[in-house]
This record gives sequence, structure tokens and C-alpha cells, in this order.
Amino acid sequence: MLPRTYENQVCSVARALEVLGDRWTLLVLRDAFSRIRRFEDFQRNLGVARNVLTDRLNRLVEEEILKRVPYQERPVRFEYRLTEKGRALWPVMMTLMQWGDRYYPEPEGTPVIVRHRDCGGTVTDHLSCSKCGAELTPFDVEPTPGPGAVRAAA
Amino acid sequence: MLPRTYENQVCSVARALEVLGDRWTLLVLRDAFSRIRRFEDFQRNLGVARNVLTDRLNRLVEEEILKRVPYQERPVRFEYRLTEKGRALWPVMMTLMQWGDRYYPEPEGTPVIVRHRDCGGTVTDHLSCSKCGAELTPFDVEPTPGPGAVRAAA
Repeated sequence: MLPRTYENQVCSVARALEVLGDRWTLLVLRDAFSRIRRFEDFQRNLGVARNVLTDRLNRLVEEEILKRVPYQERPVRFEYRLTEKGRALWPVMMTLMQWGDRYYPEPEGTPVIVRHRDCGGTVTDHLSCSKCGAELTPFDVEPTPGPGAVRAAA
Repeated sequence: MLPRTYENQVCSVARALEVLGDRWTLLVLRDAFSRIRRFEDFQRNLGVARNVLTDRLNRLVEEEILKRVPYQERPVRFEYRLTEKGRALWPVMMTLMQWGDRYYPEPEGTPVIVRHRDCGGTVTDHLSCSKCGAELTPFDVEPTPGPGAVRAAA
């Protein structure tokens, strides 16, 4: 079980949620883990209002979860990449996705299956490879379309 | 990396966040994992408006993440307990807490240390026991005060 919180919300979950506790912020991060990097791509993928997206991206840069990296010189254009602190959210994202897959399944099946790049195994509840047992990190895996991706592609 | 989301947000993270994507909801769940069960205790611990708390608890009961269990007969009073679906959120809560501990540390140190009940080991990034290597579940662990709990207790 998680810790009792004592008084005054001295709790790491509360502190984490001060930064992340907003649906758009978490969806922006999900996209960042899918290698989406540019404002227009986030905007198109999320269908979020531009001012809301700007706000969430700025907040994530302030918190050093994303960093701005120039990808073009004249005019200067930036893309957003996960920092080490951002990549450290991979276990949160994976466990959220696993819970969603389990309890809110698509009729056609899992839309995406994250696989261990080296051996094709899937990610267990303990973030290890189902096939070779390796402890996985975001660098070791890649998304592959699952049976539920069909509807989306149609 | 997490999966690309294709069109239409066919994504388990998005579906999970439709239910959980609200700071109060996640804080209610954190408390539920700390074995808080009664309305008054949630209310006191969170300092949240009663109508907001009622709304979040009702939503979590509708989604079968919490269940209402009578603890008194006349008048009937209910407490809120995690269902199996609710307990399945333990990895999300633990990984959120670990991220908060790492990137938003209290000056005095971690407020709470979750330990493996059997051997006293801590919870690794892969939700195993740091000491004996067992893969942990919410039934195997208990919260213990860390160095950062001192300020809260003062």
C-alpha cells in the first residue's frame, strides 16, 4: 500500500501531481514518448486549443521535463524533446497504458503493443521483457500496431 | 517509447486519463492505497470541498475502482475500498511516487519509504524488492516513515 500522507500533503505523489495532474499535460507527454516533437504535430494529434498546448508545453519546459531544441535556423524553429527527467516518467506512462489496456479494452484488441526491440517480447507488469526477462527502459522498446489499431487506420 | 497514437486517440493512456485525469481523483486514490476509507478521513486528509470529494468518490465507484462497503447498520454508513481494478493502479501510484521522490525531494529526505513486508527491502524502479528480488504487489508492502516525515510530524 502507499504511504499515509501525514499532515500537509508531504507526499511525493502530491508533488508529482502538482506538475502532472492535468489530462492535457499527460497526453502531451504520451505524445512526446511517441516521438512527437513539433508544436504542429502535438496540436494535430491532440486536437487541443493552441493556447492550451502552448501553456502546457511551456510548463513542461519550465519544469525541465521537456527541452526546446532548434531544428531550423532562419527563422529559428524549435522542437520539444524529453529530458532525462521526462524520460524518467516512462514507467508512469507504461503502467497507465497497461491499466487502460486491461480495463478499457478496445473491442478489436490492444491498439498498440510495446515490444522489446531486441527480442520482440512484450512489457510485463514489472516493466521487464516477457520473453528474455531484461529490465526495460524507454530506449529498449518500440511501439508496434496491435489488433485494435485496425479501426484507427481504417 | 510509447506508441504512436494513430488517429482518434485510440490509445489506452487516453482512455485511462478519461477516468483518472484529474488531480483530486488521483489524490483520492493515493489515500485509498494508504488505507483511508471513510468520507470524513478523505476530506480531512485532502482538505478538499465536500461536493468535489463526493463527485470524485461517486465517479470512482461508478467506474468500479472503489466499492462502497457498509461498516455500520443504524444508520447505515459506508466506507470506500479499492476493488481489484483499483488495486491494479498500484504500479501507477508507485511509479508516480518514485518520480516525485527523485525529482522533487524534500530537503529532509523521502517522506515515506515503502518497504517489502517480508524482508524490509525497498521498491525498485521495476517494482521488485531491492533486497530479495521478489516482484511486489500492493499486498506485499507497507509504508514506513522516511527522514522527510519528521517535518510533517512536528
